[in-house]
Amino acid sequence: MFDKYFDEYEVGEMWKSANGRTVTETDIVNFCYLSGDWYPLHSDKVWAEQGPFKKRIAHGLLIFSISSGLMHFEPGYIKAFYGIDHLRFTQPVFIGDTLKVHVKILEKIEKNENHGVIVAESNTINQKNEIVLHCIMRVAVFKRKKGREM
Amino acid sequence: MFDKYFDEYEVGEMWKSANGRTVTETDIVNFCYLSGDWYPLHSDKVWAEQGPFKKRIAHGLLIFSISSGLMHFEPGYIKAFYGIDHLRFTQPVFIGDTLKVHVKILEKIEKNENHGVIVAESNTINQKNEIVLHCIMRVAVFKRKKGREM
Amino acid sequence: MFDKYFDEYEVGEMWKSANGRTVTETDIVNFCYLSGDWYPLHSDKVWAEQGPFKKRIAHGLLIFSISSGLMHFEPGYIKAFYGIDHLRFTQPVFIGDTLKVHVKILEKIEKNENHGVIVAESNTINQKNEIVLHCIMRVAVFKRKKGREM
Amino acid sequence: MFDKYFDEYEVGEMWKSANGRTVTETDIVNFCYLSGDWYPLHSDKVWAEQGPFKKRIAHGLLIFSISSGLMHFEPGYIKAFYGIDHLRFTQPVFIGDTLKVHVKILEKIEKNENHGVIVAESNTINQKNEIVLHCIMRVAVFKRKKGREM
Amino acid sequence: MFDKYFDEYEVGEMWKSANGRTVTETDIVNFCYLSGDWYPLHSDKVWAEQGPFKKRIAHGLLIFSISSGLMHFEPGYIKAFYGIDHLRFTQPVFIGDTLKVHVKILEKIEKNENHGVIVAESNTINQKNEIVLHCIMRVAVFKRKKGREM
Amino acid sequence: MFDKYFDEYEVGEMWKSANGRTVTETDIVNFCYLSGDWYPLHSDKVWAEQGPFKKRIAHGLLIFSISSGLMHFEPGYIKAFYGIDHLRFTQPVFIGDTLKVHVKILEKIEKNENHGVIVAESNTINQKNEIVLHCIMRVAVFKRKKGREM
Repeated sequence: MFDKYFDEYEVGEMWKSANGRTVTETDIVNFCYLSGDWYPLHSDKVWAEQGPFKKRIAHGLLIFSISSGLMHFEPGYIKAFYGIDHLRFTQPVFIGDTLKVHVKILEKIEKNENHGVIVAESNTINQKNEIVLHCIMRVAVFKRKKGREM
Repeated sequence: MFDKYFDEYEVGEMWKSANGRTVTETDIVNFCYLSGDWYPLHSDKVWAEQGPFKKRIAHGLLIFSISSGLMHFEPGYIKAFYGIDHLRFTQPVFIGDTLKVHVKILEKIEKNENHGVIVAESNTINQKNEIVLHCIMRVAVFKRKKGREM
Repeated sequence: MFDKYFDEYEVGEMWKSANGRTVTETDIVNFCYLSGDWYPLHSDKVWAEQGPFKKRIAHGLLIFSISSGLMHFEPGYIKAFYGIDHLRFTQPVFIGDTLKVHVKILEKIEKNENHGVIVAESNTINQKNEIVLHCIMRVAVFKRKKGREM
Repeated sequence: MFDKYFDEYEVGEMWKSANGRTVTETDIVNFCYLSGDWYPLHSDKVWAEQGPFKKRIAHGLLIFSISSGLMHFEPGYIKAFYGIDHLRFTQPVFIGDTLKVHVKILEKIEKNENHGVIVAESNTINQKNEIVLHCIMRVAVFKRKKGREM
Repeated sequence: MFDKYFDEYEVGEMWKSANGRTVTETDIVNFCYLSGDWYPLHSDKVWAEQGPFKKRIAHGLLIFSISSGLMHFEPGYIKAFYGIDHLRFTQPVFIGDTLKVHVKILEKIEKNENHGVIVAESNTINQKNEIVLHCIMRVAVFKRKKGREM
Repeated sequence: MFDKYFDEYEVGEMWKSANGRTVTETDIVNFCYLSGDWYPLHSDKVWAEQGPFKKRIAHGLLIFSISSGLMHFEPGYIKAFYGIDHLRFTQPVFIGDTLKVHVKILEKIEKNENHGVIVAESNTINQKNEIVLHCIMRVAVFKRKKGREM
């Protein structure tokens, strides 16, 4: 996705991840491990079965982390991945769901002769074509021939 | 932090994580593993040394994931952790930095007799007291005696 | 659990972990990884199916490690977690079992003006209310206003 | 170590692990992950530097887990690894320390014609030949020709 | 397996791993993590179900890595594990398959008074006795009394 | 690398990985974990310091696994990754070394109207431009418009 210069993006342009990724119990357990967030909705089967979803669900930030990996950040084009707005977890993700990412360019903001900011909408989609995570990303991208800085 | 009912929060109230957590090379490598995001700023020492920070830095989403674990979510009070706004990565985090989280209640939004929404500002702070990550969280919290639902 | 001064404990006092934790295949595989203990009762389905339990079981030390995480050790009260007595693995733990910890204060031993030793019985309980692990813990705990030393 | 029948052990017999294992920061971070025990003595460099050891130390149960892996449990001889007594963490273990295990047979307890209990003292030794962990293990071991049961 | 001197091997000699190891979903996910190889045949359930195997399969190099661990390399006998020839992935390995390793000595090559090269065929076998991986290993092994060098 | 049809390859063609990857202590420890291969040259600092390399080195199969992840396998072009020949570990890889992969097409073998076999030489290169791993890969690649099968 982020594999070209600021000049080369067009507002309205879309990109879809080639690969999907199945969310496994291993991923959820590993996210408990890494984050230290053992909220029982993610880690206690008995507790989760008594809740509204009837089973354990993935952490929102795990889905966000997986989504970031499904995007393609080619070295040499990005100055900074500096922020996210309106991040929403719109549907629960269960063990065995398979995710893809769809990105759409919303806006190009001129900054200086070196780089601009790309504003893009990212939607993470499950195997039933439901949007499970939505956010707006802001990425500073180099202009052509301004070379690699970061 | 999230260990009481909607009624019990006050706008302006602050909370600080008791524990700090040192970000290790292991954490960064594990976040490459889990997310699949091997951007060389996080995973290629040679490349990172030629960039503006002169060394590898942690992924923004790793810092966010660690921050979520430093907060305390007590089972039985939260209806849904449904969104994040204005997430900004304000300073690089290096291997060996130690992080804490400061949360401040910004707003209480009435929803119904069952629950309301707590809007809180979260800042992740390093050992030099710099803010490295900033965001606004939106959490649906039960009112007293409305029982556990999720 | 360990969130107060020596003076504040009473013999006979009980504490139960708020959260439960489901033991997953991931946990067992990770304990094989970390410990290097690949005894086939934990790691070879074919072998385990021929044994008395008819399936793989969790390592006793995995259960003990999980139990230690379910207890709450608040920084600033503990001088040293110096020993365990009479550790017994009383029932097998299978993939999918959910564990909680019950702790009971058995004895308070005066040491000096700075700290004393709390002797506590810890039982790890599965979702059928069976005790799967039992031990006696010895923890040196600071007296009030003696400050943090470790 | 546990690679023969009850009949073949002699009281006083000693065994030393062929391999040593260096305790890495990765091991400590992974034990925080797996156990959920993020006590700052193990995970917060700043906090640990203000304490008596001046740096982070390994969890006692990590050392115990590593020690269990350094022992050799040959399939087919052990009926049950049913308990530990007098487990003591006698010296701190730091990142970079290298551990070996020494085991000594203390007692053979007859149970029935099928198996007996081996009582053994286990000491985990660091590269300076200091004992860092001590315990007494109780292992039910089959008698010769009684076949594999677990 | 590699627990003796060059002089002690005989051409035609066979060795079988005592332990088997069940390949879990955790192992496959961890190999995606560690290698960065997220080819969808290993990580995308939907994609794999449309392919010739109808489900996800383990990476060939995961099977090879597991096989290397099932062999026994005793410290002090091996000068160098310097190469592999004719590595073939002959059958798919699925989640839940249990693997063992069979090794046969094919050839002994004299090098000098210090060491020789052992050429061995290694076959990894599943629970249905099918060969899933085949290779020829070349290992430089010390001669007796030439001491440990690596 | 493997992102096109059999017809599109030319003998002599070269490909270099865009990203490099630094081999960390975490990677080596994780490969000990995953493979179960704790040979002390990889896991015992004291032992490794007495050997010819004076420090711990990475497992050859870890380097091979990392190399496989640095190659790009685009879904839809590969029928089978069926074998490796002449795999050689030509230089030790230490903690902190940074690796890239260079691939050269050696031969195209016609099989049938559906696919052919690409024979390619792969060299893994460290930051000093030394070849640390060499092998010949055999990959069955679809011909154009023959559709995805695996």
